[in-house]
Formats: sequence, C-alpha cells, structure tokens
Amino acid sequence: MTPFTDGATLQALLDVEVALAKAEAEVGVIPASSVADIAAAARNDYYDFAALHQESAGAGNIVIPLVRALTARVATINPESSRYVHYGATSQDIIDTALVLQLRSAVPVVQDSLTRAVNGAAALARKFATTAVVGRTLLQHAAPTTFGLKAAGWLDMMARCRDRMADALDQALVVQFGGASGTLASFGSAGMAVGEALARALALRLPEMPWHTHRDRLVNLAAAFGIVCGALGKIGRDLTLLAQSEVGEAYEAPAAGRGGSSSMPHKQNPVGAIAAVTAAVRAPGLVATMLAAMPQEHERAAGGWQAEWETFPELVRVTAQSADAIAQVLSALTVETVRMHGNVGLRGGVAMSESLVMGLSRHVARGDAMRIVERLSRTAEREGLTLGVVAGRDSEVAGRLSSSEIDNLLRPEDYLGAANEFVARVLQRWRL
Amino acid sequence: MTPFTDGATLQALLDVEVALAKAEAEVGVIPASSVADIAAAARNDYYDFAALHQESAGAGNIVIPLVRALTARVATINPESSRYVHYGATSQDIIDTALVLQLRSAVPVVQDSLTRAVNGAAALARKFATTAVVGRTLLQHAAPTTFGLKAAGWLDMMARCRDRMADALDQALVVQFGGASGTLASFGSAGMAVGEALARALALRLPEMPWHTHRDRLVNLAAAFGIVCGALGKIGRDLTLLAQSEVGEAYEAPAAGRGGSSSMPHKQNPVGAIAAVTAAVRAPGLVATMLAAMPQEHERAAGGWQAEWETFPELVRVTAQSADAIAQVLSALTVETVRMHGNVGLRGGVAMSESLVMGLSRHVARGDAMRIVERLSRTAEREGLTLGVVAGRDSEVAGRLSSSEIDNLLRPEDYLGAANEFVARVLQRWRL
Amino acid sequence: MTPFTDGATLQALLDVEVALAKAEAEVGVIPASSVADIAAAARNDYYDFAALHQESAGAGNIVIPLVRALTARVATINPESSRYVHYGATSQDIIDTALVLQLRSAVPVVQDSLTRAVNGAAALARKFATTAVVGRTLLQHAAPTTFGLKAAGWLDMMARCRDRMADALDQALVVQFGGASGTLASFGSAGMAVGEALARALALRLPEMPWHTHRDRLVNLAAAFGIVCGALGKIGRDLTLLAQSEVGEAYEAPAAGRGGSSSMPHKQNPVGAIAAVTAAVRAPGLVATMLAAMPQEHERAAGGWQAEWETFPELVRVTAQSADAIAQVLSALTVETVRMHGNVGLRGGVAMSESLVMGLSRHVARGDAMRIVERLSRTAEREGLTLGVVAGRDSEVAGRLSSSEIDNLLRPEDYLGAANEFVARVLQRWRL
Amino acid sequence: MTPFTDGATLQALLDVEVALAKAEAEVGVIPASSVADIAAAARNDYYDFAALHQESAGAGNIVIPLVRALTARVATINPESSRYVHYGATSQDIIDTALVLQLRSAVPVVQDSLTRAVNGAAALARKFATTAVVGRTLLQHAAPTTFGLKAAGWLDMMARCRDRMADALDQALVVQFGGASGTLASFGSAGMAVGEALARALALRLPEMPWHTHRDRLVNLAAAFGIVCGALGKIGRDLTLLAQSEVGEAYEAPAAGRGGSSSMPHKQNPVGAIAAVTAAVRAPGLVATMLAAMPQEHERAAGGWQAEWETFPELVRVTAQSADAIAQVLSALTVETVRMHGNVGLRGGVAMSESLVMGLSRHVARGDAMRIVERLSRTAEREGLTLGVVAGRDSEVAGRLSSSEIDNLLRPEDYLGAANEFVARVLQRWRL
Repeated sequence: MTPFTDGATLQALLDVEVALAKAEAEVGVIPASSVADIAAAARNDYYDFAALHQESAGAGNIVIPLVRALTARVATINPESSRYVHYGATSQDIIDTALVLQLRSAVPVVQDSLTRAVNGAAALARKFATTAVVGRTLLQHAAPTTFGLKAAGWLDMMARCRDRMADALDQALVVQFGGASGTLASFGSAGMAVGEALARALALRLPEMPWHTHRDRLVNLAAAFGIVCGALGKIGRDLTLLAQSEVGEAYEAPAAGRGGSSSMPHKQNPVGAIAAVTAAVRAPGLVATMLAAMPQEHERAAGGWQAEWETFPELVRVTAQSADAIAQVLSALTVETVRMHGNVGLRGGVAMSESLVMGLSRHVARGDAMRIVERLSRTAEREGLTLGVVAGRDSEVAGRLSSSEIDNLLRPEDYLGAANEFVARVLQRWRL
Repeated sequence: MTPFTDGATLQALLDVEVALAKAEAEVGVIPASSVADIAAAARNDYYDFAALHQESAGAGNIVIPLVRALTARVATINPESSRYVHYGATSQDIIDTALVLQLRSAVPVVQDSLTRAVNGAAALARKFATTAVVGRTLLQHAAPTTFGLKAAGWLDMMARCRDRMADALDQALVVQFGGASGTLASFGSAGMAVGEALARALALRLPEMPWHTHRDRLVNLAAAFGIVCGALGKIGRDLTLLAQSEVGEAYEAPAAGRGGSSSMPHKQNPVGAIAAVTAAVRAPGLVATMLAAMPQEHERAAGGWQAEWETFPELVRVTAQSADAIAQVLSALTVETVRMHGNVGLRGGVAMSESLVMGLSRHVARGDAMRIVERLSRTAEREGLTLGVVAGRDSEVAGRLSSSEIDNLLRPEDYLGAANEFVARVLQRWRL
Repeated sequence: MTPFTDGATLQALLDVEVALAKAEAEVGVIPASSVADIAAAARNDYYDFAALHQESAGAGNIVIPLVRALTARVATINPESSRYVHYGATSQDIIDTALVLQLRSAVPVVQDSLTRAVNGAAALARKFATTAVVGRTLLQHAAPTTFGLKAAGWLDMMARCRDRMADALDQALVVQFGGASGTLASFGSAGMAVGEALARALALRLPEMPWHTHRDRLVNLAAAFGIVCGALGKIGRDLTLLAQSEVGEAYEAPAAGRGGSSSMPHKQNPVGAIAAVTAAVRAPGLVATMLAAMPQEHERAAGGWQAEWETFPELVRVTAQSADAIAQVLSALTVETVRMHGNVGLRGGVAMSESLVMGLSRHVARGDAMRIVERLSRTAEREGLTLGVVAGRDSEVAGRLSSSEIDNLLRPEDYLGAANEFVARVLQRWRL
Repeated sequence: MTPFTDGATLQALLDVEVALAKAEAEVGVIPASSVADIAAAARNDYYDFAALHQESAGAGNIVIPLVRALTARVATINPESSRYVHYGATSQDIIDTALVLQLRSAVPVVQDSLTRAVNGAAALARKFATTAVVGRTLLQHAAPTTFGLKAAGWLDMMARCRDRMADALDQALVVQFGGASGTLASFGSAGMAVGEALARALALRLPEMPWHTHRDRLVNLAAAFGIVCGALGKIGRDLTLLAQSEVGEAYEAPAAGRGGSSSMPHKQNPVGAIAAVTAAVRAPGLVATMLAAMPQEHERAAGGWQAEWETFPELVRVTAQSADAIAQVLSALTVETVRMHGNVGLRGGVAMSESLVMGLSRHVARGDAMRIVERLSRTAEREGLTLGVVAGRDSEVAGRLSSSEIDNLLRPEDYLGAANEFVARVLQRWRL
C-alpha cells in the first residue's frame, strides 16, 4: 500500500547507488563502463533484507552490509567495477536520499486518498447542504447546523492538509550528498559536479549544503503527516459518534466481512472510522519522536538519526491506512435524514433555546430572556413536553411572543444562519 | 518576553469583544453608541485574571465569567449597552480569535531572535569559512570539515525554520466566528457581513467557514514552533559538545552572574546552549499534545480544545526562550582556533584516514587500501605516533606513496572538498 | 490546590537549606548557633520568586540567585552565619530534595480525590448492581451489562492507580545529597553523617548514592500520575458519552454557574468529565517529556534535568484537577434509570442478539444461528419492529423456540451473567 | 529475540483458544472430546499471518478471521468440535490474554539483559572504585569522582528498573475474560468457573472483573519498559561521551564488522551505546501513545485499544535491543585509566577549584575564597599554567596556604569524599 515495504526500501537504496555511479561516470570520476555492472547487480531480489537488517545492528546501519554485498556481486560481474561501488559516499547519503525517494512515492498515495475523501465529503456537503442536524457542543445538543456544513468542514480541513503535504514534500525533495563529513572531500574538486549530476539523475534538487544533521525539512513533512492523522481522527470520531446506536445519523456502508462481531450478529462496527481514530492516537507519539530526534550531534548523529529509521515509515503507513479508510467511508456513507430530523427535536427541542432567547430579547433584556428560556428548558425536559408547548403557556412569554411567533422561532430549518453560504464558500474555494 | 502573560491574554480577549461590537455596529446589528461603552470597559486592569481563571473551571471556559464581568462593568457605564456585550458570539469565537492575535504578536518575536541568530551564524560562517575543524560522526573523529560550514549549517536550518513560521502563521491568521453551533444563526442573515467586518477590524482573514473543531491551521503553526525548538536544540547540543573542557573549541561569552556554580568558581556553564537543549526536550511533548487534541467532537470539543489552552502558550514561551538564548550565544561566541587546530591532529591525526585511503587507492584496490589504513590507524593510536610517521615506515605504503605525498594527503586544510563552496551557497541563498 | 504554587516551591527550597544547616550543625560541620539565623531568614515572603526566576535564566538554576539572596539576608542577622548557608551542597541537592518534599505533599492530595471518587463509584456500583444498561462496544450497542459493573470498573481502576501512586511515591522519598560531583568531597569524611542527619531531618531515606542523573524513581512517579490521568480520562469519556442528549443515562449534578453556555440557556455541559478528558490529552506529552529527559549526562545534565522543572509540576497540577473533578462528579451523579431501560431496548432490542444465538444454538449449528439472527436483526432494524416480533414470525425460528422462550432469551435483566458477581468481587477486594 | 514475532503472536492467540476450550471442557460447557480437535488445529504454521493481518483491517481485529480459519480447520478434523471454537468468548478476551502471555515471556528476556548489564557494571564499580575521573556537570569539568561511582550509578539504576519490571509484570498477569460485553452472559451461571479454569490453565490470575477498557495495568508495564529505555539511554549517552576522541576514557570492545565506517578505516563507532540512545529517543513517544490510548469508551474502545496493538510490541522490541546492547557493552568495556588520569588534570586542573575554596575558607570568608579561586582559575586557563602554580605565586593565597597544603588540596585522589562508600553501599544493596 505504501512504498515502505522491506523490498521497496532495499530497492530505493540500490537505486541511489546506481544513480550515484551514473553521476560519477558522467563527471568522469569513475569509468562509464562500470555503471552497467553496478546497475545489473542492483536488484532487490538479489539480497536478503532480513539478514542485512540483522547485520546492521552491529555495523551501525544497513548500508554498510548492503554495500559489502553489492560490491561482492558486482565483483562477480566485473572485479574492476566493484571498486566503484558507493564511491566517495557515506552511508547516510544513501539512506537519506532513498528515504526522500520513498517519501516522494508515498505522499501522492496519501494525497490520492485525501482527494477521494474530499470528493466524498463534497458530495455530502452538496446533497445535505440544507439538511438540519442538531449541533453538538461538548457532546450536548446545541443550536442546529446542517449535515452539509459538517461535511464541508471535513472537506475544507482535508483539502488544506493535502495541500500542506504537497508543500512539505516539495521542501524535502533534496538529495543528501556530503560524503564522510559533509564536505565531499573524497571527490577533490569534483564534488559539486557529482552532486549536481546525482540530483539530476534522481530528479531531486541539490540543496545549498548537505543536511546530515539538519532534519527540519524531514520533520516538517512528518508533521504534515501527523496533522493529516489528526484531521482524519476528527472525522473518524465524528463518524463513530454519528453511528452510535442512539444517534444513528450516518453509517459506514455495510459490506461482507466488514465490521462484524464474533458473537453478536447484529453488529456493524464502524471499522473505517475507528482506523482513523486509531491513527490519530498513534501519530502524535511518532511525530514527537521525529521532533525529539532533531538535536543531532555535529556531522552525524549518535542516536537521533537512528531513531528516525523505523519511526517515519511507520508514520507514513499509519497515515496511509487512515486516509484510505476515510476515503472509503466518505465515498459511500449511509445517511439517515429521518434520524437527523428526529434527533434535532429530542428533549422537547431545547436545542432551539438560543433562537427563543433572540426572539424574547426583542422584548426583554437579554439576561432576562436567558433566565426565562433556561426555566422553560428545564420544565420541558422535566415534564417531557416540547419547548414550544411550555413557552406557549408561560406567563412571562405570553403577551410578548404569539404562538405562531414561537413556532417560527423553534423551527430548526429556519435557524441555520449562514450554513448554506459557508458550504458554498468551501465548495468554491476548492472548485468542487 | 512573549505576548502570553496573563495580562496580555486578558487584553486580547477584551480586544476581540470590542472588535466584535465595532463590527456589529458597522453592520447595524447593535447600536453604534454602545461601542464606546464596551471599549471603555475593555481594559485588562479592570479584571482579576486569577479569579476568572478559577471560575472558568466550573464555567467551562474563561470567557463565560469574563463576559459576565465585562457586562456588569458596561452596565455601570450604560445599562443599554450592556445588552450588546458578546452579542451573538460563542465563547470559542473569542478565545480562538484572541489566540490568533497573540500568535500574530508572538511569531515575530521568535523570528527576530532567529534573525539575530542567523546573523550571528553568518558572521561565524564567513569568518571561519576555511578554518579546519575535525569532523565528528557518531561522536567519533571523522574527516575534517570547517567551522564555517558548521555555522552555515546552523544558519541555513534556522533561516528555513524562520520562513516556515511565517508561512504557518499566515495560514493561521483567520478570524474565528461562528456563534453557538458555527452557523451564525443568531445574526439572521447578517452573519457574513458581521464576520467580514470583524475580520477587517482585526486585520485577519475571514475563512471559508468557522473552524471550531478543525484545528489543522493551529497545529501546523504549533509544529513550526516545535521544529524551531528541535533545530535550535541541535545547535545547543553542538555548542555544549564544543564547549566541553576536553574539546574547548567554542564558548559562550562569559558575563557576570552567568553560568557560574555555587561551589566551583572555575565554572562557566553553557547556559544558553542548555536552554536550547531543554526546549528541544520539552517541545515534542507539547506538539504531541496539540496533535493528540485534534480529534475534536462535532461542533465543539469535549476535551481536545481545552487541552490546547495551556499547551500552545507554553510551547510559544519555550520556543521564545530558546531562540533568544541561541541568538545571544551566536552573537558573541568565543571561538578557539588553536584548540580546533590541535583537536584535528589528536590521536595521531587518524581523522585523515579517508584521505590516505583515497591516495593509496590509486595504487591498490580500494578494499586493500581500507585494510592497510585501518592497520596503520590502529598502530598510530596504540603507539602514540602520527598516522604520517606510521605510514612513512610501512612496507605496504612504501614504494606507493612518497613521504611528501603522505604529508600532502594528511594535511587537513587540503582535504576540505566543497566546504567553502557550500558556505558560499548558503550565504548567497539567504543574501547574507 | 497543589503544593506547586510559586510560594510553596520557594518555601520548599528554603526548608531544605534549613534542614541542611541543621544536619551540618548536628554533625559538627557548622556551628550550631548558625542554624537559627539561617532558619530565621528562610521564609518565602522575604524573597521575590518572579525576580529569582528571571535571574535563573542566566545563572543556570534558581538556587544560585536564591542562595545569594538568602546569604545576604542571613548576613544582616549574623555575618558569621552567612558563611554556612548552603554549605557544601550543590544546587541540585536543594532543587531535587525540595521537589521530593513537594511531591510528598502533592500525592496525598490526588489520593484523597481518588478515594472520594472511589467511594462515589462504590456507592453507584452497589446501588445499580443489577440495573441493566446496554453494553456498548466500538460505540455500538452490544449485549447488556449493568450500570453497577460500569461503576465497579471505574472504581477498581482508580483504586489500583491510587495504590500505585503510593508505591511510586515511596520509592521516590529519598534525599538528594551529593555536593558538586556527587561525592560529598567538600565534607571530607563527614559527608555520610551529614547525609544521614539530613535525611532524618526531612523524614526521607538516604539512598545508596546520589541520583543527580539517575531519574528513574522520579519518572516512575511521573508515570503513575500519567496513568491516573489516563484512567480518569476513560471515566470522563464514558461520562461525556452517557450524558449525550441522545443517551441521557447519567448527568453531572447541576449547580449554579456550572456548565452553562453564554448563548444557549438549556445547556448543562459536563465540565467535570471534560476536565478529566482534557487532562488525559495533556498527560501523555508531559510524561513523555519526563522520559525523554532521562538520558542525563555524566554527573549533571545539560538539558534533561532542566526540562523536568516545569514539566513535573504541571503534570501534578493537571492530575490533581482531574482527580478532584471526577471525585465531584462521581459523588453526586444523576442517574437516569428510565433512560437506561429505554436505551437497552432501542432499535428493536437487537443488542440481545447474542442471547438469541445462544438459544438457537441448542437446535442448529452455531454458524447457522449467527446467520439467522443477523438476518432477523437487519429486518428488525429496517422495519422498526422488535427482534422478538421478527423472531416470533420467522420460519427458521419457528418450531425451535417458542414464543415464551424467545421472550425469555430477549430479556436484558436475565442476560447479565456474572455482572453482579464481578461487582461483589471488586467491592470485596477494596473492602468497600 | 523477543516473543513478538508474527509467528509467536499467532501461536499465543491459538494457545489462548486452546486453553479456553480446555477450561470450558473442564467446567462441562463444551464436550471434553473437542479439546483435542481444537488443540490439533492450533498450530501457527497452519495459518498465514500476513493474510489474516490483511483481513483484520476490514474485520476489525485479527481474531475474527483467525477464528474463522481455525473453525474451518477444526471442522475438517471433526465438524462437531468446530462448534466449540472460541465458544462464548469475545475477540478481545483472546487478544489481550495472548498479549499478557507474550509479555510474560518478554519481560524476563529484558531482565536477563539487565542482569548481565548490572553484573558488568558491578565488575567495573569494584575494579575502578578508587580510580579518579573528572566529574562533569553541564558537560563542563567539575570536582573529581571515580569511575567506580559512575558504574555504581548505572548499576543501581538498572537494578531498580529490573525490579520495577518484575512488579509491573506481576500486576499485569491477569487473564482477560468477559465475553461480548464483559459479563460472561453467554455462559449463563458457569462464567466464573470457566474464568477460574482458564486462569489456572494459563497460570494467570483471574482479576476481580474483566478489564477490556481498563488498561492501567498494561500501561504501567509499558511505562516500566519506557523507564528502562530512559535509564539505558543515560548510560548510552555517558558511553558515547566517554568514547569521544578527545575524551577517550572508555570504549566498546572492538569486534569484526562492528562499528566500522564505509569510508574511514580508523573508525570504531560506539554502536551499542548508540542503540541505547536511539531506544531512549523512541520510547517516550511509544509510552505516550499507550497513555493516550487509555480513555477507552464504555465496554470496548473505538480506537484506543487498536492503537496499542503495534505500539506495545514495538516498545518491547526497542527495549530488548537496548538492554542487550548495553549488556554487551558493559560486559566488555575497554577502560583507559591513563586518559582518565590525564583528563582530570586538563586545563591546569581547575576541576579542583572547590577543594581549594574549602582550604582557603578556613582562612578567609567563603565568598572571598570563591572570588580568589575564580581569579586563579581564569589565570591558569588563560596562561596555560596549573592551578597549583598560579596559587603558589599568588599574593592572596601566600601566607594562608603553604605550597604543600596547596598540593594536597589539588590532588584529585584525595578529594573523592564518600565515593568509595557509595560504591560499597550500592554493591551491598544488590548483594553484588
């Protein structure tokens, strides 16, 4: 699903070694004839990732045993060419550049999922732009909003996150190339030329200088992933709440083998939404690790760089799963407008209290209106009556608001303010 | 130091209430005459932050008791005007917009510190562009680099972080305005006009829709702060390592009452660098909290929003302290070039081993060159001789490299590759 | 509320200085007559915390300026005695020991709140031991449980957490005393005797050796605080979910000025539960910071120790607020048994599906029973009928289960298994 | 290395299913004859972990497809027995109990490594109990300590951590068994008896009640792992600092293929110490995730539980690697006493400043002594002289301290205070 399988990681490392050889040949640092030999040996299925990973514990990183193995294989093709494997580079040049290549592949996967999710949300926003649902603040009923506006809020946030990923990725698309201490000294005066050729070969930019211990670009991209997870976690949480048996306003489309229970056959668990919540619980710790790893010592880190190796790929995997899950859910959400209509009227329709206050405020001081409507709301809830009935028979309301005025004030669909306008602005902003 | 003192926070909240009244008067929602009354009461020294903070625990947030107190004070000026305090708004409109105002003030403070630090680093990069220092990878001596390149690396990273803050702040400069459930329903059809006037009054943008539970812009800015802390932490760590008694290559300028010890009078502790390391330890947890708070329920959060209240200001404070500390240190760093020269030659100058390998590789296979130089290095370290002396008398080197060739290969200042070019690129990139 | 106000912190530091003087006088290291002079000057209201805090940025820590100020004040009493202020100690001896003293005061505050909360939960567990409520797994209706068992689960967890705090505190009740480098060298051969006297004076244990950079005991206690927050966060989340307008099974007792809204008078927000959720969002980052700070260099840290200073007190404050909030809520929870009864029967009572499967499994293979009941559940939900009605008229059920057998199987109060037994075990375990 | 490979995880799940069947047969809930059939099918090599993992995304957890596959295989042995697979249990019963089993296997692996590390440190503490090394506070030279005391500090901390793990594991050794909603309702009145039999079969305790959403025991154990990583990170950081080329006081024993460089043959990187630092960077984020996952909803979590699945095993792996690495390093550390002796005298031996202050304080006020010695130290450092020489010719010292008194005061091995006594206390505490 993401380009962070073991095999893809191995191939990315090998791809950088090949590009390095090409760049060096282009500049004349190594013989042109060696490039094909090195390229011929640079196939991930020739090497045993698990074994290399094991060796890396003692060696310090995976490129040390990989270069050994690659060199040995090149030597079987052409001993002369084996002298030019990994020529002048340091392990971190390879590992970091390979990571950048994998991130360049991974970000569009997440972005595509986000685009599917955005489109799903846009369809919901349009379709339910005027469908009143009860607002819920601090998990309590509040003045109504629309389901379209809920969807537009999801949409807007996801679209921003998607754009932010693009920007963060762009900043990170730089080759890592500095050699042992970041000076390219082993190339004499040819270092910059090789660097430029390497960047060209990989379609990356050559940064002003190597960034072995300057990780801000990477961590900025990691943060963008983390923010995607947080944003999708909000959507996932909303969806689990909407899908509650007592609420029942929106469900993930049922599918065979999806969201069932091993003991309760009626169950349809919101597994997609839960995947997003799960990712949102995990991402903060992963991003925090990337940040905590930033104070990297001198020219190469003693711990911080190494802490990134499993953390960033895991963050990418978690984000990709979350984005795919939400894309699936929003593309085929079952929306229950009857339940929405019913819920907004629950508990006597006290969710409309603000509207009644606004109406009464034309006649009495706002503070008095607040006190009157609080009293009416408590009565309605206690006695199981609607707020309208309670208001209609109240002596403090009588003479100020007529029965039809009360009815008008308590109609949810007439108390939606700019909801529709907001939806339109969002759709227009993203040309949807 | 930052705009997150209690008094500043209180004033920011009051400023938003005043701007709201102005906007509402402009649109004709409230009487124009009330604006001056509300503004007259909106001074932070009229209110007791500690008492309001205490009340907020039960009330749910600080704006509820603040609006009560503000309304009461306005009533003493003009009872009629007191009806229009906080008119149509929800607490979160005020709290979030005030936060945005404070962040708008705070970011430039950090950026100014970063600029001072960047300038300090630029001066170091220029002055020591060709001063060889030993490279250190995994805290072990490696091929040499220059002190100028170290400083250029700090500079480049800090300048990127500064720019990234600007971008993240810009994204976050949006007013929060949605009313109870985010629809502005209490304004009838006037909501958008009030929103536009409010945004104008505060010189913020009006976003496509309210963002009460869509926190990505804020968290993106929080991440930018966190990345600044991480970047400065790298500089701080480098500085503490360079200042070690055994290394002694760079010191914070001594000052009265600075970095002393209560028991050891010789002490000059690197307190500025340590402040930056401290911030880098703290920031990841604070950013993680901001990320963890993102899944906010429906139209207003039940916990997530509230978790931001103390976390983001603390992150700003920590970052501001770190940036100021590093600005001070880099503006007046004591650099010991004699020690730099001495250190690069320590342990027989084995740090130059790569150069010797490159030289020998012209005559023997690279693998053989590696083995020979490893053996020579071990001998030099064991016998307390220089690598040059050991190489000069070695039978495998003899006949391949002359004594003067060995000397040339082992001269650090001749093995600096593109260091100077990298420094120039960095300075040019930032026009320094 | 907690012993981590500025004033209390200052007094704790001064208390350690006085205890040190006492211990030194007892051993004969300083004149006995100086103790009273030092004690007379050791009152927090003599010193300006804000100013000392400001100075600490340059000095490196707060004890350096505090000792200076204390010494000056002692000198005004008796110049001779001023020579013995802070005699032989290092700043960290004072700061760490003061922290331990404050933690010794703070832990019981949290434990008392937990005990109140445990008692509140115990009362609920007993009172509602047989009150059926619908189970909710992945936020979907599941087989029923009892409200008593929910409360017992909260109780059991909180009681474990409270005991764990006691154990972690006990481990941490050790004096910090090592002098400049942790050897007590400035005391010659008297160091151990002073250490023993100091520990006695403060009623702390003398550890095997100083622990300036060995923070495991402290971090273990910090983790115990964090786990309390997590546990209370689960309770807080459950309570916010139960208080949802659509669920309505339990509410925080209303009180004046509590949980209201500035615009919607019907609102009664669950502010206590939300405080607990908020703390659970914040605590992980704070605990992570304590963990991240553990790799402290050599004999005194360059960043890690300093990162603890604001983090641990904040963690204590957050935990204390959460525990107090939950104690209040659980001591006076409004429980709506009518809603509980209603909710378990929602959606046709499909929450009882497992029970029907168990009944049918006596007649058909379990897999077949699952398929039949899934079909019945879907029909019930789609047609708005009860599961009992749908089952009663189904051809696959007919002949296998009689109408009264179906009724018995679908009665929630008869499908509660060991719930009551679990409640009893929990109450017995904690002798409640 | 740890019991958290895919295969071991699968087997642990299957082991719980078998134990469940045994317990149910023992109580008479299922036929005794089915146990052997289920056991025969419960071998991990019969199932495809990757495929099950894939299916789990849609199903909600891995046990749902595993039970399906297990049931199918049992059916091929005996269709009747297939009815009793996973009988009455819920997925979480299996997953949580399997995790407990794996943790029971994993903790001793870490503890064994810690014991090896403790023994290694004990040998160092004994051997170098009186070997003076310079103290280092805030990474600056401070009064001397001993290498034995450094090692004793490591030892003491690791031994405490090891014991804490034992305690935390013991608390967590409880079976998870509650069925669909935690009431064991599907067993009628036999639930408790099955639970007791299941606990017996697995040699775990039966807790007071199921703990599906009460995760404190687990998180407490996770915190214990995290604290191990932090403690080992401190040791790793100390070792990387001691191994710095300029310090050179202790090295990891060299070994073939260990800690080399692909370009610099002189390199011997401290890969073991770095592994520990790496783990200490990663663990805080993982522990924070476990804490953040604690607020789990009602009877089964919608996100929090799921976030634990990959987090806890990763934390165990990281900790196990770190403990093994430090055990290796401390068991065969190369200690350079000559360098230790040399370093303590660096920079004119100003590290002894406190001792000179103590000596002078017998003749002048302490404040004056501090000022004199600060001046002497600066002179010594500036002029490249020893503190002794500078003191000997100083007019303020002359007449107060004789030349031999100065010499005595500045002898590191005579200024070690209680260091040896501390080492003895630590060794005795742990009977080493």
